[in-house]
Amino acid sequence: MHSTDRPRIDRRDIDKAAEDLKNWGKWGEDDQLGTLNYTSAEDIIRAATLVRQGKVISLGLNFDNNGPQAGRSKFPPVGRFNPIHTMLRTGTDAYSGVLDKRGMRSADDIVIIPSQCATHWDGLAHIFFDNHMWNGYDCREVSSFGAARNGIEQTKEKFVGRGVLLDLPRYLGLDWLPEGFAITTELLDSCCEAQGVKVGTGDFLLIRTGQMEEKFAAGSWDGYNGGDAPGMAFETLYWLQDKQVAAVAMDTWGCEVRPNESVEGISQPWHWICIPIMGLTMGEIFKLDVLGEECAKTGAYDFLFVAPALPVTGAVGSPINPLAIL
Amino acid sequence: MHSTDRPRIDRRDIDKAAEDLKNWGKWGEDDQLGTLNYTSAEDIIRAATLVRQGKVISLGLNFDNNGPQAGRSKFPPVGRFNPIHTMLRTGTDAYSGVLDKRGMRSADDIVIIPSQCATHWDGLAHIFFDNHMWNGYDCREVSSFGAARNGIEQTKEKFVGRGVLLDLPRYLGLDWLPEGFAITTELLDSCCEAQGVKVGTGDFLLIRTGQMEEKFAAGSWDGYNGGDAPGMAFETLYWLQDKQVAAVAMDTWGCEVRPNESVEGISQPWHWICIPIMGLTMGEIFKLDVLGEECAKTGAYDFLFVAPALPVTGAVGSPINPLAIL
Amino acid sequence: MHSTDRPRIDRRDIDKAAEDLKNWGKWGEDDQLGTLNYTSAEDIIRAATLVRQGKVISLGLNFDNNGPQAGRSKFPPVGRFNPIHTMLRTGTDAYSGVLDKRGMRSADDIVIIPSQCATHWDGLAHIFFDNHMWNGYDCREVSSFGAARNGIEQTKEKFVGRGVLLDLPRYLGLDWLPEGFAITTELLDSCCEAQGVKVGTGDFLLIRTGQMEEKFAAGSWDGYNGGDAPGMAFETLYWLQDKQVAAVAMDTWGCEVRPNESVEGISQPWHWICIPIMGLTMGEIFKLDVLGEECAKTGAYDFLFVAPALPVTGAVGSPINPLAIL
Amino acid sequence: MHSTDRPRIDRRDIDKAAEDLKNWGKWGEDDQLGTLNYTSAEDIIRAATLVRQGKVISLGLNFDNNGPQAGRSKFPPVGRFNPIHTMLRTGTDAYSGVLDKRGMRSADDIVIIPSQCATHWDGLAHIFFDNHMWNGYDCREVSSFGAARNGIEQTKEKFVGRGVLLDLPRYLGLDWLPEGFAITTELLDSCCEAQGVKVGTGDFLLIRTGQMEEKFAAGSWDGYNGGDAPGMAFETLYWLQDKQVAAVAMDTWGCEVRPNESVEGISQPWHWICIPIMGLTMGEIFKLDVLGEECAKTGAYDFLFVAPALPVTGAVGSPINPLAIL
Repeated sequence: MHSTDRPRIDRRDIDKAAEDLKNWGKWGEDDQLGTLNYTSAEDIIRAATLVRQGKVISLGLNFDNNGPQAGRSKFPPVGRFNPIHTMLRTGTDAYSGVLDKRGMRSADDIVIIPSQCATHWDGLAHIFFDNHMWNGYDCREVSSFGAARNGIEQTKEKFVGRGVLLDLPRYLGLDWLPEGFAITTELLDSCCEAQGVKVGTGDFLLIRTGQMEEKFAAGSWDGYNGGDAPGMAFETLYWLQDKQVAAVAMDTWGCEVRPNESVEGISQPWHWICIPIMGLTMGEIFKLDVLGEECAKTGAYDFLFVAPALPVTGAVGSPINPLAIL
Repeated sequence: MHSTDRPRIDRRDIDKAAEDLKNWGKWGEDDQLGTLNYTSAEDIIRAATLVRQGKVISLGLNFDNNGPQAGRSKFPPVGRFNPIHTMLRTGTDAYSGVLDKRGMRSADDIVIIPSQCATHWDGLAHIFFDNHMWNGYDCREVSSFGAARNGIEQTKEKFVGRGVLLDLPRYLGLDWLPEGFAITTELLDSCCEAQGVKVGTGDFLLIRTGQMEEKFAAGSWDGYNGGDAPGMAFETLYWLQDKQVAAVAMDTWGCEVRPNESVEGISQPWHWICIPIMGLTMGEIFKLDVLGEECAKTGAYDFLFVAPALPVTGAVGSPINPLAIL
Repeated sequence: MHSTDRPRIDRRDIDKAAEDLKNWGKWGEDDQLGTLNYTSAEDIIRAATLVRQGKVISLGLNFDNNGPQAGRSKFPPVGRFNPIHTMLRTGTDAYSGVLDKRGMRSADDIVIIPSQCATHWDGLAHIFFDNHMWNGYDCREVSSFGAARNGIEQTKEKFVGRGVLLDLPRYLGLDWLPEGFAITTELLDSCCEAQGVKVGTGDFLLIRTGQMEEKFAAGSWDGYNGGDAPGMAFETLYWLQDKQVAAVAMDTWGCEVRPNESVEGISQPWHWICIPIMGLTMGEIFKLDVLGEECAKTGAYDFLFVAPALPVTGAVGSPINPLAIL
Repeated sequence: MHSTDRPRIDRRDIDKAAEDLKNWGKWGEDDQLGTLNYTSAEDIIRAATLVRQGKVISLGLNFDNNGPQAGRSKFPPVGRFNPIHTMLRTGTDAYSGVLDKRGMRSADDIVIIPSQCATHWDGLAHIFFDNHMWNGYDCREVSSFGAARNGIEQTKEKFVGRGVLLDLPRYLGLDWLPEGFAITTELLDSCCEAQGVKVGTGDFLLIRTGQMEEKFAAGSWDGYNGGDAPGMAFETLYWLQDKQVAAVAMDTWGCEVRPNESVEGISQPWHWICIPIMGLTMGEIFKLDVLGEECAKTGAYDFLFVAPALPVTGAVGSPINPLAIL
């Protein structure tokens, strides 16, 4: 169903969901990990047994000037840009002989990279609910000095566990889900059944919409960033809470359906609840095409998933190179 | 033995090693991965079976202003600096109400990060031998536009396999190896034997010197970057070639012993061979203290190792968050 | 005349111009200033007498995300981008009370700025002729470490003198010169005569084409960067040499006419000679509309011109805020 | 007198000064320029007549890795660093032939520069008084998106006028004023008299303490940034208000005397009033040694002063290359 045909989410709906789904305190007053806590040591041991082929598939885009930030969008600018890569020493310096006084010929470099420019984790300090963030911390803990609480560095030993892919367009016989397509709880359940996979506690849930392939086919990212997109309906928050997933990641800019289901004045209602209220870490702009093909081939939709964040102290997200190990 | 007591490496020694150890063409004319090719699918499957406790240990430093680049050093400057993290939107903006016109309260950020500022992989485009780099490519392929060959993005599905730790100071009964301590082939062999572990084809070899703990104890990184350090003797190149490791990583700034064993005018002779001639990827500034303790406790010095590079196109290295999964 | 109707410049023409116009050694073997040397102390004293109204007009664009680098262009990318401005402390931090432990409430910031992203000086290390730059220095003096010779910091006490504006579209009764319009020596002379102004030794010559106003009218910079443009014909190099101007600045991306007058394989032939051979500093992306109106009103086309470069050591250009003081 | 021997400034003193010296509304409700308004067209015309020698002296440091941010300091970090200059194309690229497919050999670059890392203007959005900034604007107008009010771009046609130098160490027969030396109103008056110069409405007042030369002599910036320093006593705010200067600039990190004269918990009390209450723009880290020598030689302590800010939209300060034109 198209998002604009669905009942509008208003502030009361959001407040109700916040009441229903609030996980604050569940893992202690000092917790900064949220649902990442769901993954147990046992889960990791079991996930390792899913490595059957010894095959590694990267779920990340390369970080370069062809990334999604090149797309033109009507979304109010948030200051992100494609990574800027510059050199500190080069092979041309070497060839020119200017490095020889150092006794070694080497190259070196810098990257200027917005945390959320391409494939990334949203950290738990990324979204606020009124004046609070995950676990009830005051939003002022995230100042120009960075996130004093819920910074991405807290997660540095997380993001290892069982990955499960739900390949929605393949299940529906489509190349990709259309813009505005609202992914419902019912669809998630039926896809699981069709794929023969169960989503459980501590899993890393990857959901493919195919929108990235649509943009690849178009040869342009225009409209990808903050444009219309298929994505999660508001109701799926309850499903995710019920399943106790560790994190959810998708192949779109913002996971939730766009146009949003919300009334005017409220943007990204699913985000309002997911990150600050549930403590559910979210991955965005994952590249899931190759993984989808592989899973279809083998019929196995689960695997070892390892996607460590770069532990930049106080960061509210992280560029990543997530790996599915099959 | 202290590096200054060892025979001096001169250009003829280097040329001989280059002749002895050159792997160019071994994995085809177009190869850009070098010894990372040693890790087979079987190796990955076997490595996954090493996950016995479901425990994840990060081998990376946090990326922040307390990183190693704060240290003062006499090494000629290479332009690296500690990561600079700045915010694009904050919780204080949220609290101040200035985000509400966007319909959502969120934080966002940027990091300006030299590839090699803290825990990182050196890519195969990092070091040149005369006018060539790994696999014989012309060094001019690494220009201000980045590395057209051997860029770190080539490795995006590598860095998964069996990790092996050699904890040298623990084996020798020391807190840390002293500056200038040359790690010999003989020491590597005897440590392997004492630890009851064999280093084999496709392994990721981690070698602890303890120098990072020495700097932690001193409360300052002064002298760490390009200062004197324990590290690999030149002769170990032959041992590494023989063992067919996929990569080697250490807890020092530059892996090899400093002062270097080379004659004046040649700096970092081990690097000259390791990266461009052998195609051996090198990890530096790994944090190995916790892993060392854990291995000592269990007596098992091998584990699943997953350390994906950030695939910045054309980069000659990558900041990383390497994981040991036990 | 449209640039494509003009005789094509080939390598022989360029070599001849290089021979005719080479100023290497003219100001000594160690000179790093080129034609900026033409401005004498007397010139500066006289220029100061042109301040008749006490009026200051900025000839610079603001540096922000609306700058010219937002334009899409077919020119091969050179890595420039609009300035990125990020905050280190904010008023929202202040309001939120998080700064009070410092005993003062303050804001602070950073800008990431390509030298040539908007209004700027091209320095004398910006263009090379074969393997040399201005005054015969080896081009390898400009490495990843910056320009060891001809860096923009050399000019830090220059860019003060008499400014002269030639307002070509106003003279020709046009809103702006069309794309591909080649500005000839004859046109420069006739405009001088019509405006009643002489261009002389040590002057800073500003030439308005109106292209910037065309882009303002279009509401988009598309096509401005490296697209077709009105600009200087190759022949004007001789005129500029003859006039002995200190520098020349225009309101286009690259001063010279585009499509270029050159044969395939040679880009920007005027640049080849102007900077490295003549030592003539060039200003680009100057905003000349307001100055044009003012000069038309008073009939006086000369003024005190002060446009200090930011002395970034080793930079090959500088963002600037040039001032006409009338 | 040493700052620690002076009466302590507490919050009541600050509130009284705020009441006494508040210029809010003086130049209209919408003013964003403060005391820069004092400089009239007549002042600029007269200032131009001070150009007697045609000599230009830069009052700026070069922007490079040797700048003041290299100094170690006990001041709580504010995130500033020395400018980072990186290349986008180089002469070594040219020499290596990798640019020739572009038809032109050129170099290009980027600088990453904190507004206040070296010689700079503090803008009127830099300091807040409680929840307000200059002219009574809400401090929340300065968010992560930059300064919506009082941004430095507002000043792009200012910073031209009569400059006056007070060379205090020369007047007192010292190499430099010692740390903690409080510059009093009396000293300013007596120095004016000794130098034969009057400070008047709309002037740009430059005050030399010699501390920069002390650091040059020491060969290190340690202690310069936020360390102890000679500087303005709190009482001089009244003198500056009375003189109606357009701006004041000095050769120290922060103009005012350090240790500050304030009670614990209040830092930089002079700043609290100067910028947000009086609307007085402040210049810091000016290099005044050469100008001091020149003025001493000629006996004339006034000159044309031109120091345009880089108009980075929303910036709260600007790196500059200020010029004295004599």
